[in-house]
Amino acid sequence: MSLSETIHRANEAAAGKILVVDVPLTLESGAVLASYRIAYQTYGRLNADKSNAILVCHALTGDQFVADTHPITGKPGWWTTLIGPGLLIDTDRYFVICSNVLGGCLGTTGPKEANPATGQPWGLDFPVITIGDMVQAQVALIDHLGIDQLFCAIGGSMGGMQVLKWATAHPDRVFAAVPIATASRHSAQNIAFHEVGRQAIMADPDWCGGSYFLHDKRPERGLAVARMAAHITYLSELALHRKFGRNLQDRNAISYGFEADFQVESYLRHQGASFVERFDANSYLYITRATDYFDLAAEYGGQLAEAFRGGNVRYCVISFTSDWLYPTSESRVIVHALNAVAGNVSFVEIETDAGHDAFLLDEPEFFATLKGFIEGCARHRGLS
Amino acid sequence: MSLSETIHRANEAAAGKILVVDVPLTLESGAVLASYRIAYQTYGRLNADKSNAILVCHALTGDQFVADTHPITGKPGWWTTLIGPGLLIDTDRYFVICSNVLGGCLGTTGPKEANPATGQPWGLDFPVITIGDMVQAQVALIDHLGIDQLFCAIGGSMGGMQVLKWATAHPDRVFAAVPIATASRHSAQNIAFHEVGRQAIMADPDWCGGSYFLHDKRPERGLAVARMAAHITYLSELALHRKFGRNLQDRNAISYGFEADFQVESYLRHQGASFVERFDANSYLYITRATDYFDLAAEYGGQLAEAFRGGNVRYCVISFTSDWLYPTSESRVIVHALNAVAGNVSFVEIETDAGHDAFLLDEPEFFATLKGFIEGCARHRGLS
Repeated sequence: MSLSETIHRANEAAAGKILVVDVPLTLESGAVLASYRIAYQTYGRLNADKSNAILVCHALTGDQFVADTHPITGKPGWWTTLIGPGLLIDTDRYFVICSNVLGGCLGTTGPKEANPATGQPWGLDFPVITIGDMVQAQVALIDHLGIDQLFCAIGGSMGGMQVLKWATAHPDRVFAAVPIATASRHSAQNIAFHEVGRQAIMADPDWCGGSYFLHDKRPERGLAVARMAAHITYLSELALHRKFGRNLQDRNAISYGFEADFQVESYLRHQGASFVERFDANSYLYITRATDYFDLAAEYGGQLAEAFRGGNVRYCVISFTSDWLYPTSESRVIVHALNAVAGNVSFVEIETDAGHDAFLLDEPEFFATLKGFIEGCARHRGLS
Repeated sequence: MSLSETIHRANEAAAGKILVVDVPLTLESGAVLASYRIAYQTYGRLNADKSNAILVCHALTGDQFVADTHPITGKPGWWTTLIGPGLLIDTDRYFVICSNVLGGCLGTTGPKEANPATGQPWGLDFPVITIGDMVQAQVALIDHLGIDQLFCAIGGSMGGMQVLKWATAHPDRVFAAVPIATASRHSAQNIAFHEVGRQAIMADPDWCGGSYFLHDKRPERGLAVARMAAHITYLSELALHRKFGRNLQDRNAISYGFEADFQVESYLRHQGASFVERFDANSYLYITRATDYFDLAAEYGGQLAEAFRGGNVRYCVISFTSDWLYPTSESRVIVHALNAVAGNVSFVEIETDAGHDAFLLDEPEFFATLKGFIEGCARHRGLS
């Protein structure tokens, strides 16, 4: 069995449901994927008139296992606090869909899959993809499931970018949209942090110009460094202080050496080491690139409001006070643009010191906001 | 000529003035340096009663070439805006001293110098040093120059930590102290960013466990990544936005690739590439470690005010509004501790969007503050 076959079979085992799309996908770059696979999970049942579907869009390093056990790490899904029977997004009432993004590494077509032209993993020959391309692939999945209109598209961070793209490119197919802790375009600082991560990966000799699978190597050290740098941006200064402060691993003394004396060092190293077990380095390059390229206004002559004009989507925009990766000011830009075209939008800034990762945590005010919005929309949609 | 000899001679040529100290230095770790070298520069003339000396303490990757051309880069000194004939720190009036810190790589003893026991570069056998150790070495230099009391100790960032250490450990030897954009201890976030940099260096196979000189290699890729990550923390989000925004290198279009499409990417890559030409990777490990270990209150039972008790030093504490590496709150901690023991302190927070690096820039309000403080102190000291 060749290496690419091994990868392929591992994916099959890990990925849950798979849709193979044989209709060619023309990417924003102009490149064409002749066919592609979408790995996805669903929870709950689609109702008779197919009006109760909620699409969950995952963040940079998330995946489709939003509400059940992750096949690699064995950990609970990343939004089990929110999604499940009787929970806020109640799978007894809603049909929840989550798919691995295009370019990802958990079953959906991406750089570690076999390039049909060669039979070997794509590596850097995989075309660069965008948030818009990810959404195009999701549209194919929603079509396949026979759903005309999503009841709701929801996601945080890069997931929020997909939500914005869905609601502006396909306003008739989204009843309600919840972009959380996100932005309508990446800032210079956002791009800068991603570039550090990419350079860390590319600096690793085991990256082999992107062809590491062919050399039976993986750039684990570079990818770990990339993850460590990114992870700092997911937490607030205060959250790090509260969690670790200057606490030492060994309570008694510093070592006067380069081992992880401080708990925060040990924590970061662990974040790096565990990440490389579940993520592909080239996917990290492609997905960070997609978020860097994201600029919703650019397609509308730089006028963000024009992206929202004419749509009838109900928006709930949510930000967190201590999120310095996608600060509240970025959400305000979205809200102001919606206001400028008399869009239907509620906006809530949640007070928390948890930083960007607050959207993954059990934040009571955040949950109360979501609950109110989803229940209100359900009544309007006749789902109550 | 052996490799270590080559390094040694290069240092001699580059380093300017050298003091060789043959009195053993017991470091805070307990390790002993039997002898050590201090590379330093001076500007202006010491007056007859030796009362006009200003010690400038440099930041993490700074050096002794504060007011004249750098021997490696050929660029002007890093504080030529501030220091020179007729300038704010007027070398026609003051005798300015700046030395490369212990553990540094521009002539002062550090990990790239020859270990007397082996004749080979120290590498990781060099003892871990602290901010206190750096100050001890500076004390030896000031003793050598026959100066009982510095008129002023001034420095930003890690330089400010040295200033705080000078003024608290040797209050009788410092008339005035100016700690700028600094902190009395490193926060968890500060440590985290430094740890990313260290891991980036150590992940580079060319680091060779710290013995890269013996293998005729240098971990340039790892060091460049470390610099890139750190560099982001030196600028504010707004400064990056103003400077680069989402501007493209090629104005017309994104490349759908991994070249530096955005100007901010190209800028960061340049910062990384130029840094490795002038800095030693092991020095970066040692000096970041020294700042992580810095915790002024720890030596005083966790009571920062006790560090300042009994001293008679005049302090001017300066912070910058957009500095998120050492935010104003850190300066306030210092000021509150000084207030608690009725210390002589003025505190100014400068409004600027330049971020941490503001202390290196031509900031009019910053300069006006410094000018007022130094002139006032000069009158008190009888230097006017």
